[in-house]
Amino acid sequence: MNDPIGELIALLSRLPGIGERTATRLAFYLLEADEELSKALGGSLSTLHRDVQRCEECGNFTSGERCAICLDSRRDASLLCVVARVPDLVAIERSGAFRGRYQVLHGLLSPLDDIHPEHLPFDQLVERVERDGVREIVVATPLTVNGEATALYLGELFEGKDVEISRIASGMPHGGELEFTDQITLSRAISGRRKV
Amino acid sequence: MNDPIGELIALLSRLPGIGERTATRLAFYLLEADEELSKALGGSLSTLHRDVQRCEECGNFTSGERCAICLDSRRDASLLCVVARVPDLVAIERSGAFRGRYQVLHGLLSPLDDIHPEHLPFDQLVERVERDGVREIVVATPLTVNGEATALYLGELFEGKDVEISRIASGMPHGGELEFTDQITLSRAISGRRKV
Repeated sequence: MNDPIGELIALLSRLPGIGERTATRLAFYLLEADEELSKALGGSLSTLHRDVQRCEECGNFTSGERCAICLDSRRDASLLCVVARVPDLVAIERSGAFRGRYQVLHGLLSPLDDIHPEHLPFDQLVERVERDGVREIVVATPLTVNGEATALYLGELFEGKDVEISRIASGMPHGGELEFTDQITLSRAISGRRKV
Repeated sequence: MNDPIGELIALLSRLPGIGERTATRLAFYLLEADEELSKALGGSLSTLHRDVQRCEECGNFTSGERCAICLDSRRDASLLCVVARVPDLVAIERSGAFRGRYQVLHGLLSPLDDIHPEHLPFDQLVERVERDGVREIVVATPLTVNGEATALYLGELFEGKDVEISRIASGMPHGGELEFTDQITLSRAISGRRKV
C-alpha cells in the first residue's frame, strides 16, 4: 500500500542522530506545518548534489568551479591547511585562526578499511605545493589513529622538500579540568608545554 | 551569492529540535552521502502535502480519502477516541489498547489563543456520534490546561445524550518512583485508586 508518511519517516531515519522516534516527530511536524516548508526543503534537497560540487582546486564544497576561499586573493596561498572533511574546514574557518588555503582529503588513510595513499588526492597536493610555492602545510587531520597515520604519511611525503610540515597542537581543551582529562591528552599537554 | 548549502541549513534549522549545529551536520552528511538519499528525501518532501490528506471521516492523515482505521470494518464503530493531534492517535495505536475509531481535533480549545469551539470539528463529531450509534467517547486529549478544558467541553456537549463520555486515567506512569513524582500526579493517582 502507498504510504508516503512511512516512506518519509524511513528516509529521515537514515540521517545521522535521527532515530525512528525523531523521524516520526519531524514527519508530523512537516505535515502540520505550512506546505511551503516541505516544498522548500524538498526542492533544496532535490537539487543539492546538482548545485554543489567539489572545488577543483581544494575539494571544498562550492556552487561554482572554485570555492570562495580559493577565489579570495587575500588568503595566503603559501600556507596550506590539510583537513579530512569539509566540516573540519568550516570549524577552522569559524575559529578565525587561519588565513591560508585548504586541501580537503575527503578521507583519511586507513589500512584496515583498505584506504591507501592512492585513494587520497596526494598527487594533487604535491603538484599544488610546487605550483603555488607553499611554504608550510598545517596538518589538521583529527587526533585519531587514522588522522595521525595520515599526518605521519604527509611528513614522509614532503621529507627533504622545501616545505615545512606542522601539526595542530594537542593538549588540554579550553576550560578543561585536569582531574577529568584522559592520560594521553594530559601527557601530550605536558610534553608539548610552551614557555609563557 | 548563490549558497545552496547555507539555504539547506537554514531550512533544516526550522525543524523542531534541530539547531544550526545539527542542521550543518545533517547538510554535510547529505553532501557526503550518495546523491540518492538527498533526491529520495527531496522527492518525498516535495510531494508530501500533495500525497497526504486528512481523512474526511476522522481527520487522521491518509493517502486516500478515508484512512486505514476508518476503512477497517473490524474496528468497533461504537467506540470513539477523541485526540488533539495525529501523533497522539499513532501513540495510542502503538499501545494496542484501543480497538475503536478516532476523531482528531487538530487542536484544542484555548481561549488565550482565541481557539473557541467553532474552530474545532465538534459539529462533525456530534453528527458522527448520531450516525454511527457511538456508545462511548474516550477523551484522550492531553492532561494539560487546554486538554482538560477540551475534555470538560466535550462532557458538557454530550450531557443528557445517550453516549458515555470517559477520560483517560491520570496517575503514576509505568515504572514511576513515588519519591520523584509531582504532587498533582500523586494526588490524582491516590484519588483515582482502584480495587486490586
